[in-house]
Amino acid sequence: MTYCVGIMIESGLVLASDTRTNAGVDHISTVRKMTVFERPGDRVIVLLSAGNLAITQAVIAVLDERHREENQTCNVFAAPNMFRAATAVGEALREVYRSDGEELRRHFIDFSASFIMGGQIRGEAPRLFLIYSAGNFIEATPETPYLQNGETKYGKPVLDRLVDPKMSLDDAAKSALVSYTSTMRSNVSVGLPIDLVIYRKDSLKLETKVSIERDNAYYTAVREQWSKGLKRAFRRLPDPQFLRRDGSSSSP
Amino acid sequence: MTYCVGIMIESGLVLASDTRTNAGVDHISTVRKMTVFERPGDRVIVLLSAGNLAITQAVIAVLDERHREENQTCNVFAAPNMFRAATAVGEALREVYRSDGEELRRHFIDFSASFIMGGQIRGEAPRLFLIYSAGNFIEATPETPYLQNGETKYGKPVLDRLVDPKMSLDDAAKSALVSYTSTMRSNVSVGLPIDLVIYRKDSLKLETKVSIERDNAYYTAVREQWSKGLKRAFRRLPDPQFLRRDGSSSSP
Repeated sequence: MTYCVGIMIESGLVLASDTRTNAGVDHISTVRKMTVFERPGDRVIVLLSAGNLAITQAVIAVLDERHREENQTCNVFAAPNMFRAATAVGEALREVYRSDGEELRRHFIDFSASFIMGGQIRGEAPRLFLIYSAGNFIEATPETPYLQNGETKYGKPVLDRLVDPKMSLDDAAKSALVSYTSTMRSNVSVGLPIDLVIYRKDSLKLETKVSIERDNAYYTAVREQWSKGLKRAFRRLPDPQFLRRDGSSSSP
Repeated sequence: MTYCVGIMIESGLVLASDTRTNAGVDHISTVRKMTVFERPGDRVIVLLSAGNLAITQAVIAVLDERHREENQTCNVFAAPNMFRAATAVGEALREVYRSDGEELRRHFIDFSASFIMGGQIRGEAPRLFLIYSAGNFIEATPETPYLQNGETKYGKPVLDRLVDPKMSLDDAAKSALVSYTSTMRSNVSVGLPIDLVIYRKDSLKLETKVSIERDNAYYTAVREQWSKGLKRAFRRLPDPQFLRRDGSSSSP
């Protein structure tokens, strides 16, 4: 599987993807799921892919090809705004579906792929989308400031508690990493390295893109201190009053 | 949906289930998913059900009927040990499948139901099982001291971090409730009241069974203090070093 998350706050965007891919347990490898389309001063667009790797790689190939051909369709560089860029990715998905969908169905394989797309095009604010395999999409808003795809559930409770549109970019990056520690603690199909992008609103260039490997001291510190902090929070919880009251249960 | 969890520690068992059921968003109601089979001094067996409500209620009805008929099959009161009791529940599931499985298939409805079964029968230690819709089952061990069914993923990371076979029964109950706060924060298909049983090893009677309603002061305190504790743990995390190093990102 995969776990990707995009967070949109007032000061910019944080986007992260893991790199584990597996086709059965005997075919596990590392694949980058983050693709950056950048033209400094004009646009930064980051795509995070989840689902069938053949499909998502084909979509990226279509987008690259159309850009090189200076085609107007399926070209995120030709899009005048982020909505049109999301439409371009959706069109590329539909093109791959027309080519492969029926063949996959013959082999009982779902046409399963989704993309988180975040970025900014000059003239409008940063925006964040989740594009479904049907090529349609939803957009993040201040009320739902983050979007996930892949193995989303393990990391959702901490994001629900931590993410706030007014937080700093550093804190948004920390929130994303905390949600990765929760996910990777509970699910082996999500794995390091994590690719992480921090995009500052109106910079229109990619300033921070890191790959967090197993030996990354900062990530290790976050994981260990978060675990300790949770245990400390747990120890501070009150003892069950409803157990005390009837005297039927106390610590053995 | 549903969220049920069973925790097996050295000093006993903690079992909990929520009570929300829904068939589409316009048919949401409250149903108990916990069933207790108790004969004090001989056995305490607690079943937590998830999945299709018609199926799980039919299974409980079969188990009740066989008990009243003093039948030897599908009767958890006739089972000489917990393995046989789990087999009895599996047999009841298979009986319901024979009756309803094909009819459900005609309506494109999965035969989806599972049970967590925990308890103790005189002569052996407490045991904990997860029984699948096919009627087969797995058992918890000290290495995997908890089992979940229903909406399992949201509450799994905290259980992975907190549950330890040597913890007290109070702490095991607290862990279960913390995993409920995480689940209910992120998923509206799991809801209060929570039914919670704490079973002390070798007591062979049910001492503590509570229903935690919305106005339960203890649960409210756990939820609020856990949320505060997480935020405190988050604030204590180090700032991203890899952002500082290249100077490209700092708090705005």
